[in-house]
Amino acid sequence: MPNPTAAMLVIGDEILSGRTRDKNFHHLAQELTLRGIDLREVRFISDESTAIADAVWKLSGRYAHVFTSGGIGPTHDDITAEAVAAALDLPITERADALEILERHYTARGQSLNDARRRMARIPEGATLIDNPISAAPGFSIRNIHVMAGVPSIFEAMLAGLLPGLTGGRPLLSQTLRVDRGEGDIAGVLTDLAAEFSDLSVGSYPFEKDGGHGVNVVVRGPDGARVDEAIVRLSTLLAP
Amino acid sequence: MPNPTAAMLVIGDEILSGRTRDKNFHHLAQELTLRGIDLREVRFISDESTAIADAVWKLSGRYAHVFTSGGIGPTHDDITAEAVAAALDLPITERADALEILERHYTARGQSLNDARRRMARIPEGATLIDNPISAAPGFSIRNIHVMAGVPSIFEAMLAGLLPGLTGGRPLLSQTLRVDRGEGDIAGVLTDLAAEFSDLSVGSYPFEKDGGHGVNVVVRGPDGARVDEAIVRLSTLLAP
Repeated sequence: MPNPTAAMLVIGDEILSGRTRDKNFHHLAQELTLRGIDLREVRFISDESTAIADAVWKLSGRYAHVFTSGGIGPTHDDITAEAVAAALDLPITERADALEILERHYTARGQSLNDARRRMARIPEGATLIDNPISAAPGFSIRNIHVMAGVPSIFEAMLAGLLPGLTGGRPLLSQTLRVDRGEGDIAGVLTDLAAEFSDLSVGSYPFEKDGGHGVNVVVRGPDGARVDEAIVRLSTLLAP
Repeated sequence: MPNPTAAMLVIGDEILSGRTRDKNFHHLAQELTLRGIDLREVRFISDESTAIADAVWKLSGRYAHVFTSGGIGPTHDDITAEAVAAALDLPITERADALEILERHYTARGQSLNDARRRMARIPEGATLIDNPISAAPGFSIRNIHVMAGVPSIFEAMLAGLLPGLTGGRPLLSQTLRVDRGEGDIAGVLTDLAAEFSDLSVGSYPFEKDGGHGVNVVVRGPDGARVDEAIVRLSTLLAP
């Protein structure tokens, strides 16, 4: 059985403007690879309701899972929950259990649960909450869409709670062979290797470092013995 | 007149698998912001011909510019040029001027211009070459699509040559006010500010650092005086 597929949607103008650098994509990519879930596509879009709804709709129809990051806080530019509800044509209401979580958190800190904070209890109907052990306000899963916060520490904590409940596949194993030759010199060998091991993925990643250059050849697949075999074959093919 | 819009397409399995971290997105975002070109969407997709062609087609119809990164080297997984040609239904052939550039480069280094390297001279019909001062093999612009290398130093060099030829807009200016209060505490004030300065964008970015937490409020717009005015107003609204 092929591994489940996934896409990620990162929401927020601050990344597209170059002001901040996203950290959640790389973290999610590594976690999913470990669990045998294939991340196939990632989109970064701005805080615009129709853009979010459109992307959620398209990605959720195309992949087994969609993970979103950003736009679920208390301010005017936090519109992800509303946009997801719109995408799925679901009502969105203030949920009693989410409100209780917020109430407990802010009361314990002597802070008021004002209207802005109450908005974080608005969740599309039928969703399951995702625990937020850091700042309380929950994420949620609705159908195959998992809505999480953008602040990296909170995103990571939410993901850690969410992932054990998802069905994974065979983790993708990889081995890398560093070759200190030009990519064009070994391209023919790589084409032959990819054809011979058509069940594996053979990637070629040129690098430049300290004035020298070379290629990292990465062989990936779910079967470790097969990956080993391909790397040994590659070494043989490249031997002088 | 509104600023020109742009999208970016980053091609490559190695980033989606979490093996490497992309650097080109952040660099492009900063360069475009400086030039008044609004980066609205970024997509990361795998080395699959139909996925690339589909994304190129959709993004090029939706934005003034599309910048691509990755997949134009000499190996079997370098399929971006062919996929762009397919997306636009254009023939792709070996170009004499591109071949000459490659020939000169490899001859000077005593390396052979083999079949794999010759593939890098295959360019969709009607394109303009983008100079590659680092490793010679050119990128290209066809219609509103700018096809560049994935290796960061080469991407940056190609972009530096390309950008002066594109019409920009008014650079987006921004000012940040750091507020050491909870995001929920200032959400009402931010909503009012965004309504009062509806010509500007008001973003709210919570942070946690050294156990404390707060919010960076970022006000953005093309008119510096107006951005100043909004920041002064915000300070007044937040004064105890």
